[in-house]
Amino acid sequence: MLDTLSSAVLSRTPAIDLHDLVSELFPLNRSLTGDGVRQTLAIVGRHVDLAIHEVPSGTPVLDWHIPAEWTIRSASISSMSGQRLVDFADNNLHVMGYSKPVQAVLSRAELSKHVHTLTDQPDLIPYRTGYYADDWGFCLTDRLWRQMTEDVYRVEIDSELSQGALTYGEVFVPGQTQQEVLITCHVCHPSLANDNLSGIVVMTALAMRQARRTSRLGYRFLFLPATIGALAWLDRNEPNLDRIQHGLVLTCLGDSSAFHYKQSRKGATVDCAVAHVLKHGGYPHEILPFSPYGYDERQFCSPGFDLPVGCLMRGVHGTFPEYHTSADNLDFVKPEYLDQSYAVIAEVLDLLDRDAVYVRIDGRGEPQLGRRGLYRAIAGQREAGGATQMDLLWLLNLADGEHSLLDMAIRADVPFARLEAAARLALEAGLIKPSVLP
Amino acid sequence: MLDTLSSAVLSRTPAIDLHDLVSELFPLNRSLTGDGVRQTLAIVGRHVDLAIHEVPSGTPVLDWHIPAEWTIRSASISSMSGQRLVDFADNNLHVMGYSKPVQAVLSRAELSKHVHTLTDQPDLIPYRTGYYADDWGFCLTDRLWRQMTEDVYRVEIDSELSQGALTYGEVFVPGQTQQEVLITCHVCHPSLANDNLSGIVVMTALAMRQARRTSRLGYRFLFLPATIGALAWLDRNEPNLDRIQHGLVLTCLGDSSAFHYKQSRKGATVDCAVAHVLKHGGYPHEILPFSPYGYDERQFCSPGFDLPVGCLMRGVHGTFPEYHTSADNLDFVKPEYLDQSYAVIAEVLDLLDRDAVYVRIDGRGEPQLGRRGLYRAIAGQREAGGATQMDLLWLLNLADGEHSLLDMAIRADVPFARLEAAARLALEAGLIKPSVLP
Amino acid sequence: MLDTLSSAVLSRTPAIDLHDLVSELFPLNRSLTGDGVRQTLAIVGRHVDLAIHEVPSGTPVLDWHIPAEWTIRSASISSMSGQRLVDFADNNLHVMGYSKPVQAVLSRAELSKHVHTLTDQPDLIPYRTGYYADDWGFCLTDRLWRQMTEDVYRVEIDSELSQGALTYGEVFVPGQTQQEVLITCHVCHPSLANDNLSGIVVMTALAMRQARRTSRLGYRFLFLPATIGALAWLDRNEPNLDRIQHGLVLTCLGDSSAFHYKQSRKGATVDCAVAHVLKHGGYPHEILPFSPYGYDERQFCSPGFDLPVGCLMRGVHGTFPEYHTSADNLDFVKPEYLDQSYAVIAEVLDLLDRDAVYVRIDGRGEPQLGRRGLYRAIAGQREAGGATQMDLLWLLNLADGEHSLLDMAIRADVPFARLEAAARLALEAGLIKPSVLP
Repeated sequence: MLDTLSSAVLSRTPAIDLHDLVSELFPLNRSLTGDGVRQTLAIVGRHVDLAIHEVPSGTPVLDWHIPAEWTIRSASISSMSGQRLVDFADNNLHVMGYSKPVQAVLSRAELSKHVHTLTDQPDLIPYRTGYYADDWGFCLTDRLWRQMTEDVYRVEIDSELSQGALTYGEVFVPGQTQQEVLITCHVCHPSLANDNLSGIVVMTALAMRQARRTSRLGYRFLFLPATIGALAWLDRNEPNLDRIQHGLVLTCLGDSSAFHYKQSRKGATVDCAVAHVLKHGGYPHEILPFSPYGYDERQFCSPGFDLPVGCLMRGVHGTFPEYHTSADNLDFVKPEYLDQSYAVIAEVLDLLDRDAVYVRIDGRGEPQLGRRGLYRAIAGQREAGGATQMDLLWLLNLADGEHSLLDMAIRADVPFARLEAAARLALEAGLIKPSVLP
Repeated sequence: MLDTLSSAVLSRTPAIDLHDLVSELFPLNRSLTGDGVRQTLAIVGRHVDLAIHEVPSGTPVLDWHIPAEWTIRSASISSMSGQRLVDFADNNLHVMGYSKPVQAVLSRAELSKHVHTLTDQPDLIPYRTGYYADDWGFCLTDRLWRQMTEDVYRVEIDSELSQGALTYGEVFVPGQTQQEVLITCHVCHPSLANDNLSGIVVMTALAMRQARRTSRLGYRFLFLPATIGALAWLDRNEPNLDRIQHGLVLTCLGDSSAFHYKQSRKGATVDCAVAHVLKHGGYPHEILPFSPYGYDERQFCSPGFDLPVGCLMRGVHGTFPEYHTSADNLDFVKPEYLDQSYAVIAEVLDLLDRDAVYVRIDGRGEPQLGRRGLYRAIAGQREAGGATQMDLLWLLNLADGEHSLLDMAIRADVPFARLEAAARLALEAGLIKPSVLP
Repeated sequence: MLDTLSSAVLSRTPAIDLHDLVSELFPLNRSLTGDGVRQTLAIVGRHVDLAIHEVPSGTPVLDWHIPAEWTIRSASISSMSGQRLVDFADNNLHVMGYSKPVQAVLSRAELSKHVHTLTDQPDLIPYRTGYYADDWGFCLTDRLWRQMTEDVYRVEIDSELSQGALTYGEVFVPGQTQQEVLITCHVCHPSLANDNLSGIVVMTALAMRQARRTSRLGYRFLFLPATIGALAWLDRNEPNLDRIQHGLVLTCLGDSSAFHYKQSRKGATVDCAVAHVLKHGGYPHEILPFSPYGYDERQFCSPGFDLPVGCLMRGVHGTFPEYHTSADNLDFVKPEYLDQSYAVIAEVLDLLDRDAVYVRIDGRGEPQLGRRGLYRAIAGQREAGGATQMDLLWLLNLADGEHSLLDMAIRADVPFARLEAAARLALEAGLIKPSVLP
């Protein structure tokens, strides 16, 4: 088991270059639906065994219906003299998501109703969508818009809203048990690196990692268009949701912020596990209470499902200036932060997989450690397979079938791995046996 | 329902001039029993539909008996030369409550056993009673007493302790349900403005207010001689006490102190409601734990009843220098503090009446707000009937039949009215239905 | 009952001179087994009715076996010229506990493997044992060892490990009920005054005290060789462990440190009782959470027993510089600290014995205290049998069968004795009757 542990520690480095993968995915024009998502999943699918699900437009999913599929070929604002001032080909943020087709000559005043800028960040292009708005729009820098002083402009959006499908991807790595960990990210944002791609690439690498391991728990990775994708998956998988023991929504994992972990609605082991790893790893972090706004934890934690799902982030949506702008780009996410996020989640997954409940074979008094070679002779506490004498005493004291290893580590206030090492020693010595929580 | 809400907010101003009513009631010589209480209730009864209850002297009430009724006509201390030095006609605090009749010439030393002064507040007359003491006494300023240096004085108290009754008043405003809110104040203190009259006048105005409204809950207002009045009411109404869902004892509501709310013995919704209103109204306040000393919450929270009754005060009995002295007068209570106290309690009553439990009609995932006109298009959060988008999300997330609107407001940390507005939107959209707590 | 209370307070002074008894016991060479323990118990047995138990070597006790009995007659290190440099006769710490016999001439290098010193406390002799180590050793000051620069030394240990017994002592003072308080100390350390003898002498005096009293609870005092002694007692008494309602392990009670109380594993009334006595007695103290290292609470709180046993100390093992050295001597423990420790524990035992549950005979409203002579006339709160008016109100309010006197004292935040006095008044007045917790 020591070998397994070592390989686990070693494998907390991703098998692929995460930032390279962000760069490869960056140019694609993702939206709720459409070929941008398909292309994204095709690239992810080169690394993992990815099942692609297509849910036809109009399919009812819970309270919703799958929307029409959006296709966009080109879009521009030109001066009447023919100069292309704003062009979708330059930056896919320029067009509001789900813009309907338009071809018109408009006064600046009329056009202004369809133009989105950031007056306090005049050099950034905002990211806007209007999924169910039956509208069209352009996003551009406020500086450019203020320079566009002509009376009339020509606008053109060559887009299509048609019967198609919503596409999502799923990787399932079966475990030795029916119990599962659910890990999800959203895949519906166009050229935004942190709020979208960081989650996609970290999750891709995690799925690669778990696929190479034998685990107690199954791991289900979902690449979902936000909200409607999560709802579609929930709708189709409702009979099996009781398998989900732990869940994490991943997003914004590439920036330099401290970690932020948002707890599940009902409180869950995963909340303790993430907090434990962040604390004992010495990572600056903040724990946030559940709130019903954010990412797809909103759906997983809705009252009718109430799954044990939290959300791990570095920067928090809406609080960093690059959020939902053209500044959330390839420079904003850094390789070292992507790798660190990967390492933290990998450690959380290892912890959840290895968390276990034991019961002392005879808990009446302490066992005689000395004759089992487990007593550090004469006072001092020495290491034994990673565990101190004190860790072993905690393990033997709390192995009552009512404390998991994580519970013990929290009460002893030491890293999980030390209680796990103590459990190995005690198992090998025949002092404990596996149990289950009451 | 919006109209109802508006009128509720508007009606948080009392319909009468509270300080004027304090002034009208101030001169009356209230005590546990007697005509002072009857006159007080007669004045209150001009504003509300007041039932007057007379419980004959000697009637057993729980562990007690109704005492003899006390009548006092005059009382004085005079010099032997006939100069009236202390006269009940000047200030009804001069005579200890329930003093028995006396007519005597006494040495100063003998008299001193019956004289109460405040040596550290030499210009104030203390308030003293001796309900069950079979004694008599005078209360005067220490300054005057020190000036009374003659050897002998003539004292006269023309009082009477005789078979009569204890009088209390009751206003009941029925609700749409059998559930009731109990609101009480004491009416047994003579010319004391804050510790007595402030509660009486605020409660009178609240009873006027509730009588003009249609409410879910019934409202029962009790004007009680302290302790024995509460016990008499409890004794006579024991079979119906299970109707009381919430209760408040009102006292000392006219001074300039921050609010003090003393929690119920067992912890109750009313504790949360008062704290919520004080917090979100931005009122300086302090929450005090239950203790078995104070006002009639002592009786309501005795172990055999253990009703959900707290006590709202501004200044706390025994902690402000004017307490139980002649300085607790018409200057000590201010119109603006009386009005503010009224507004706070009115808001608490509105909250309790409107608190409700809902359950999502389908809680599996978020509902599609957009097609119901409830989604604020493109990111930002806008107001909709008083609720923000976030309030609506909290409501929809916690409408699981296990959280009342107040529970939700506390978890979301926003004013109750916003969750209530969110519930209206969700009800109108058919997203939730009424439920009850498990 | 007032007389009983007075005698209780008076008897919080020990009946014997505790420091004299420490001095008498100090020279004896205690170890896990052997005549040092027997001589110690013989001296204790002059003061209390002590049952001596001998458990033969080799007897299985839970996971362990009773070790061979260790006898030592002499031990020394001499220079080749015959000068005795280290002599067991001078200080019994000089020989490592359970050293096997040896008679040899050794090079300094070979000898050094068997020599224990404290390099950072060069004038102190350390205390070391090697109970199950099949080894021998000498403990000496580092200063002396550095002066021993000859090449060769003669060592001699005249000891014996032979079939014998483990000896422990037990005092049982029966109570009026089957319920028991368990109080233990360890008796296996040689000339160490605080870490061993302070516990022995305080416990001896407590056993004397309890033997002279009639108590509700039985009191069982165990003088145990650490670990194996506790396990032996647990093994032999397992069927009756459910009688143990409260337990305390006593150690290090003679030094000048603040008190330290280590809570039981599962949380227990004794934890509240000790904290209450330390707080209201104004003793500087710290409450420590349970941990599975320390004294015999480790055994009593092992998962298979999980008894309500805490540990009271002044200085904490391993944290004061005198710990396990020759500086833990007769100067280190002071009469006043021994006496104060005795007084604290005596008060805890009184509290546990007198803790009781009452229920109001009629809890509907407050009883009329006045006609029972329990009302302090005219406002102020005066003492009545040790209880204030407020204490009596707390008692009457919380006498609902769900709060013990200790629970009430904690909620009222007043000393236990005041609630107890209030209960006496209420009992005498027929207001409450004994009850039991649900």
